[in-house]
Amino acid sequence: MTDKDQSGNPKFKTHETLAKYDMNNIAISTICSHSALQIFHGAKQEGFRTIGITKSEVKEFYDAFPNASADEYIIVSDYREILKPAFQNNLVKENAIIIPHGSFVEYVGADAIQQVLYVPLFGNKTSLKWESNRDRLGQWIQASGLRFPKEYSSTEEIEGLAIAKLGGAKGGKGYFLVSKGKKVSKDYTLQEYVVGVRYYPHFFYTPLSRTGLAAGEGSIELLSIDKRIESNIDEIYRLGMTRNELTEYGIIPSFVVTGNMPVVVREALLPKLMTMGRRIVESSLKLFYPGIVGPFCLETICTPSLEFVTFEISARIVAGTNLYPIGSPYSPYIYDEPMSMGRRIASELRLAIKKNMLEKIVS
Amino acid sequence: MTDKDQSGNPKFKTHETLAKYDMNNIAISTICSHSALQIFHGAKQEGFRTIGITKSEVKEFYDAFPNASADEYIIVSDYREILKPAFQNNLVKENAIIIPHGSFVEYVGADAIQQVLYVPLFGNKTSLKWESNRDRLGQWIQASGLRFPKEYSSTEEIEGLAIAKLGGAKGGKGYFLVSKGKKVSKDYTLQEYVVGVRYYPHFFYTPLSRTGLAAGEGSIELLSIDKRIESNIDEIYRLGMTRNELTEYGIIPSFVVTGNMPVVVREALLPKLMTMGRRIVESSLKLFYPGIVGPFCLETICTPSLEFVTFEISARIVAGTNLYPIGSPYSPYIYDEPMSMGRRIASELRLAIKKNMLEKIVS
Amino acid sequence: MTDKDQSGNPKFKTHETLAKYDMNNIAISTICSHSALQIFHGAKQEGFRTIGITKSEVKEFYDAFPNASADEYIIVSDYREILKPAFQNNLVKENAIIIPHGSFVEYVGADAIQQVLYVPLFGNKTSLKWESNRDRLGQWIQASGLRFPKEYSSTEEIEGLAIAKLGGAKGGKGYFLVSKGKKVSKDYTLQEYVVGVRYYPHFFYTPLSRTGLAAGEGSIELLSIDKRIESNIDEIYRLGMTRNELTEYGIIPSFVVTGNMPVVVREALLPKLMTMGRRIVESSLKLFYPGIVGPFCLETICTPSLEFVTFEISARIVAGTNLYPIGSPYSPYIYDEPMSMGRRIASELRLAIKKNMLEKIVS
Repeated sequence: MTDKDQSGNPKFKTHETLAKYDMNNIAISTICSHSALQIFHGAKQEGFRTIGITKSEVKEFYDAFPNASADEYIIVSDYREILKPAFQNNLVKENAIIIPHGSFVEYVGADAIQQVLYVPLFGNKTSLKWESNRDRLGQWIQASGLRFPKEYSSTEEIEGLAIAKLGGAKGGKGYFLVSKGKKVSKDYTLQEYVVGVRYYPHFFYTPLSRTGLAAGEGSIELLSIDKRIESNIDEIYRLGMTRNELTEYGIIPSFVVTGNMPVVVREALLPKLMTMGRRIVESSLKLFYPGIVGPFCLETICTPSLEFVTFEISARIVAGTNLYPIGSPYSPYIYDEPMSMGRRIASELRLAIKKNMLEKIVS
Repeated sequence: MTDKDQSGNPKFKTHETLAKYDMNNIAISTICSHSALQIFHGAKQEGFRTIGITKSEVKEFYDAFPNASADEYIIVSDYREILKPAFQNNLVKENAIIIPHGSFVEYVGADAIQQVLYVPLFGNKTSLKWESNRDRLGQWIQASGLRFPKEYSSTEEIEGLAIAKLGGAKGGKGYFLVSKGKKVSKDYTLQEYVVGVRYYPHFFYTPLSRTGLAAGEGSIELLSIDKRIESNIDEIYRLGMTRNELTEYGIIPSFVVTGNMPVVVREALLPKLMTMGRRIVESSLKLFYPGIVGPFCLETICTPSLEFVTFEISARIVAGTNLYPIGSPYSPYIYDEPMSMGRRIASELRLAIKKNMLEKIVS
Repeated sequence: MTDKDQSGNPKFKTHETLAKYDMNNIAISTICSHSALQIFHGAKQEGFRTIGITKSEVKEFYDAFPNASADEYIIVSDYREILKPAFQNNLVKENAIIIPHGSFVEYVGADAIQQVLYVPLFGNKTSLKWESNRDRLGQWIQASGLRFPKEYSSTEEIEGLAIAKLGGAKGGKGYFLVSKGKKVSKDYTLQEYVVGVRYYPHFFYTPLSRTGLAAGEGSIELLSIDKRIESNIDEIYRLGMTRNELTEYGIIPSFVVTGNMPVVVREALLPKLMTMGRRIVESSLKLFYPGIVGPFCLETICTPSLEFVTFEISARIVAGTNLYPIGSPYSPYIYDEPMSMGRRIASELRLAIKKNMLEKIVS
């Protein structure tokens, strides 16, 4: 990706691979985790072959869902094997396009995906680097004019409450609340704790059509919304204890993501949320070429004054979309067919193949 | 509506308008907010034209949902413009029937809807006045034999805990908990705080058919149930603080409705809930002519002794139904087609047009 | 059931009844409560006649759901009437197979079901005895290698926190938290209180096919997951009070099940959950003949270290499946048709009739 094209934009090495693909025989591939059932299910609905990358002990659990299992599996003992030329060449031979999800990015690494992977990848791999670096993430959210929680460089600066977070997509592991003056290790980012309720809207940005809300040269669709369920924080109220009492019993509040629940937002708030999605897309077009492509999610908190504060961007499919394999409370307003995010990705690939525009949505 | 018919019942001025309508070309209209996507989606499914009333900056967000956008829009700068004769005449010319939702009632006003609006309105506009007046609301709930939270005229009377509420449909804004003897402004109603879990069952009363649970001369259907998500109260537990500690950090518990989540109730409780719905209908028939018509919702709390306490009635479509655009955990037990509350309204209008009985469900 | 067959396995008296049934005219029957709407709906989808057993005042509420009402009703004044020979003979004459659900087991009794009922019953009635006896339940969970909460014989033994539970399926009634040394009546079981978030996965074990995850000679399917909503514990946080303050206001935390909400779990946790389901099936094959058959649910808590602790097994359809009458976030990955647990039961009966293997799934 060090080369540039005539306009001075970076050239994706994967586009050379893509040029040799048999467009009538594309396969969709990902690691069997996170949202792979949904991705395979959607790919099959759109008529693609599917290739699961998995550890041997996991395969049978995917096969137990026949409509969402992969047609073929490649067994690995370590997901970093994906980066080896022999492995990649095998996927290339199969005309495979990889769909990156949260576990894919975590297991393979955003840097390796950008520097070493030459198998074509759905979406813009540069956006995966932006979501996983806290400084860039903050820059992106603020360049979009969205409210971002304050960050503190020491606990002395904290006003009210802060949440201490480890870097990277760790699923909430090791997060905890801190107040002014408490001691915290240097590995943690200190972020203002915004009091409200969480909403995670799931957007899809297509550069290929303007049927959704106009953004850049394409448009965005709001396909669904979820809320995460974190252990043990989301049931800790059942104990009726203050943090001091919890400490006495050796119970430490923790924020480990374990699952998701479906929600809708007040309809009067949709324009706000969708404007936020649009701004995230439009600032991405300026921050990194060619900007965000495909699914993304804003992790927000809705305050009592009905303001949304955005504390994270996921620049790829999120696990919250797993709630909606045959559609959500919003997707029927856009699509006649049952439309999951997994299927939406596949239908975008289908359209791009037909229009001979795959290079716009693959990197 | 000052005139009376031969039976001494009030005559709706809108019925004169309705008499001139082209029944083969009815349009469904509402303000673009609250549950308008669902209303338009349902209207289109039943073959009606749709007219959105909206501010100019909102229109594009509805158009981003092509299956739920309006066929035509009328742009306003203030929703009270709806009351102007020129505006109303325009809707009448279009053979429009208005579907009132929570934001419609809030923006236009229950009094103005009853006194000034002559565009035909789905449902009974008199019920909108009953839901929005706390005294009448209490009278209605108690006349139905439902348990209603006690009301206190001063904080001195409070036993246990009370919630202080501002009048009108304010979406929970400004609500707070108070205990005996605390000082509270006169604008607030003091209501017994009932400890339990909330359920908001969504009913539809049809005077045209007895396929549901018999009530009055028609029947009721239980189409779905939701629970509201209020900011910040519904995630305040994540802080692990008592109210005193919250106060120290400047955090004020608040009850602002931000969205909804889907729930079902124990099946053994359905007869209780449905009996409550039936009684609300039957008492409405006595309290105000011609009684409630179409969708309504009871805001209830289910106590540990499995008793439901009803603290509000919404006498029109509620936003919680937005969870179910293609059906709920209950609607498939009644309908073969995917049935939202928005579609149920449209199908009722369709049936009434066919039976030449629109006057029974429009006011 | 005192007789044994040639292999030394117990012989079910119901199998003699079944031998006389007209396989072209089977009826599905259950008590009108718990998950009966779903059971009747599913039975109708699979072309079975349906017979509701109900009290006279309940019937009209089932008839208000025409797609899920029974074709015929038998009115009782006490559910124990089901055990009378005249009643049973009537069901036998109708070629009825009973689907047991939680209320059926509670009202009729697991002992009576096993000893007195000779109407064929879907599933293995012996498993109903194992789920309802705390000692056997613990034995079953531990024989499956699942983590089970510690049980304490007195409050002196409690480490951290315990929950005191009354025996039997009481829907959470009378449960409360206790700490070391508190006084508690002898009727209560003291169980370690595990801090985390609850997930209730809904499995179906079929001995007739290996399309799911291999288990025993058949396979299991993960059809859906729910979380229970308990009053008042699941909204008690809204008060912002410690247990001491609650006591001052006379508010007692309680764990009465009132309803359910839909959830999904992190996809990386599915292999764990499904392995747990498989082990429960495989140990049941060893513990009691012929092992568990049909739907079952594990009541689990997911800890912050992403370990599942199982505190109950429901060895029959659970009410949480009522969330999914036309499918769940998992069922579309297995079935092309909308598949509820109620329909899954009916489709299993349909398959067994076709294969002449009803004896394998009826007891």
